[in-house]
Amino acid sequence: MADVFEVLHEDPSGARLGRLNTAHGAIDTPAFLPVGTAGTVKGITQESLEDLGAQILLANTYHLYLRPGHALIRDLGGLHKFMAWPRAILTDSGGYQVFSLAGLRKITDQGVLFRSHLDGAEHLLTPEKAVDVQLALGSDIAMVLDECIETPAPRGHAATAVKRTTEWARRSRKHFQECARRNGGLDSAGNAASQLQFGIVQGATFADLRRESARQLLDLDFPGYSVGGLAVGEPHAITCEMTAEVTALLPKDRPRYLMGVGKPEQLADYVALGIDMMDCVLPTRAARHGCLYTSHGRVLIRNARYAKDSRPLDNQCHCPACGRYSRAYLRHLFLAGELLASILGTLHNVHFYLDIMRRIRDSIAFGNLAGLSSELHARFQADPS
Amino acid sequence: MADVFEVLHEDPSGARLGRLNTAHGAIDTPAFLPVGTAGTVKGITQESLEDLGAQILLANTYHLYLRPGHALIRDLGGLHKFMAWPRAILTDSGGYQVFSLAGLRKITDQGVLFRSHLDGAEHLLTPEKAVDVQLALGSDIAMVLDECIETPAPRGHAATAVKRTTEWARRSRKHFQECARRNGGLDSAGNAASQLQFGIVQGATFADLRRESARQLLDLDFPGYSVGGLAVGEPHAITCEMTAEVTALLPKDRPRYLMGVGKPEQLADYVALGIDMMDCVLPTRAARHGCLYTSHGRVLIRNARYAKDSRPLDNQCHCPACGRYSRAYLRHLFLAGELLASILGTLHNVHFYLDIMRRIRDSIAFGNLAGLSSELHARFQADPS
Repeated sequence: MADVFEVLHEDPSGARLGRLNTAHGAIDTPAFLPVGTAGTVKGITQESLEDLGAQILLANTYHLYLRPGHALIRDLGGLHKFMAWPRAILTDSGGYQVFSLAGLRKITDQGVLFRSHLDGAEHLLTPEKAVDVQLALGSDIAMVLDECIETPAPRGHAATAVKRTTEWARRSRKHFQECARRNGGLDSAGNAASQLQFGIVQGATFADLRRESARQLLDLDFPGYSVGGLAVGEPHAITCEMTAEVTALLPKDRPRYLMGVGKPEQLADYVALGIDMMDCVLPTRAARHGCLYTSHGRVLIRNARYAKDSRPLDNQCHCPACGRYSRAYLRHLFLAGELLASILGTLHNVHFYLDIMRRIRDSIAFGNLAGLSSELHARFQADPS
Repeated sequence: MADVFEVLHEDPSGARLGRLNTAHGAIDTPAFLPVGTAGTVKGITQESLEDLGAQILLANTYHLYLRPGHALIRDLGGLHKFMAWPRAILTDSGGYQVFSLAGLRKITDQGVLFRSHLDGAEHLLTPEKAVDVQLALGSDIAMVLDECIETPAPRGHAATAVKRTTEWARRSRKHFQECARRNGGLDSAGNAASQLQFGIVQGATFADLRRESARQLLDLDFPGYSVGGLAVGEPHAITCEMTAEVTALLPKDRPRYLMGVGKPEQLADYVALGIDMMDCVLPTRAARHGCLYTSHGRVLIRNARYAKDSRPLDNQCHCPACGRYSRAYLRHLFLAGELLASILGTLHNVHFYLDIMRRIRDSIAFGNLAGLSSELHARFQADPS
């Protein structure tokens, strides 16, 4: 797999500097993936994402499957063309949203029966269907369908979910490879020909189940491994402990993706545990609510203290919002509920996250990841400024 | 006034090609002013407005007076600095919004007592106050307070409003000039030193009242004249008739501003009547509702016919949205209620309006304004495509 993923440097903590090669460009890892739920990262144009240096986005299969539909996107040339995004895209399997958003779900070994949150229509998502939908979307990296459970979970429930997740992963891998053989490169659309399918390790907060899940997936020889079902309410220390249990078992030559994380001060921690990829709605969602991340910590921009503050949001930031607008103006936009509040806030927060990742990569290269981690914790664990 | 406004060319219809010189740059006229109600044109950054070639914006005094407050904006260096917009700004007097948005208003000769639509607080807006607030904002062009009445209006009511509008204009002009003398250039902020105050002609749909209003204002020697209280529900022919009555009386060496217009196909009509400036929320508001203006006519982008349409919204358009995204993707964004829908729609519609104005100016220069007008009417008066 050396051509797909190259580890360029590994520091003593286990943090890795790498390069993930996809059909839509190389991704410098560790990487953060802005979340483009419905084929758009909320509040920001694709041009701006390119300008900010985003090399890969996440899109949600569940949302795109329901609207506008994966067949429509396939017919229009795939998701890259549909959303006019020439760089890499990772899609999830749809499982997490089925378990968190959809109504009336019924889980069987076959798959998940659920009702759309949009119109109540009934849909069956199977491991094979999740593969098919993602092939139709033509993402560069696809996830297998896994069973996501609520936490804290009883051990028995978690063990059953691991068992099913492994079985679904087996079916997903088999179906994916059959499609590859049948289509002589997976799909009629050129992009899908090089889609990478990742397995997902589950096991809730039980270390032995996490190890068991990881070991079972290794047999299926995925080109990359995700860690799912974490950062869903458990303490950060537990998230780290479970992640460490898993990354210790994963092959060093495959990328590792911790799904759905994290807060700014946590990103370096996960990287130190050997994680190469992360995604989270936090920078974009927080931006729309006026929570802006800066080199001085969190800024809740609606606060009255910024009413007459003519300084830029972050004087150390090189994003277009900080280059032009004042805190007082940003505060005004948020209080007035203006679209420009979300636009500028999103631009800034996405830039901030991508910039943290640049600093993380630099600090791995220079052997100072722990120092960066301490700095981020000191800045962000205090109360919002 | 030749240094403020230069008429470069006048065609036989009365349409004028001109240049309005402000402290924040020259404005090619006829000009369309995008509306930045609360100090932001909804859905678009100031960078994009510059890129699209906007030379002047309108901002609403009523909104900025209530939030964040004109004193705060003055203390932060004026509206240009506050909203980071280096080009020209025109402010209205606040009167129109008081009459349309505020609660519990009571009109006397002194001014208008109203309750804020935000918090119900009581405020008194007088002609002098409207001058003071706009001086504090530091706009390049300010409007006098006028009495806006609902139409259709009884003649007696319209006549009373004209009388009061003239009296208020007299007080506004006097106060404005006293401020100028007292401050040796109006205001401590440099920009306000060259603020231009425009009078506003009222008279509802009564030609003789319109003429009377115009004649009375001429005595006050404003550097520019607005036509208010039109395009508020009356037929387009009446709007044109009233406008023509007024422009026939206005001095040729002063800019003429028809407030709150118009639809794409009407812009050239008003210009043909000698109008130099127009503003309207239509391009931005329609954009947010999925009504997009193109060289082929109106596109209601949510329509199912665009579901699989991979073409750009307008293949003759040079805006960033048309350069990158498809109709199918735009439709998806609108149906999904995504912020990017408003962002791209606004970018396109503002570009479209500014482009019509470029074409109007070109057609005056080449003597073919009537041809352009016919073309626009043919494209936009038909049902939405």
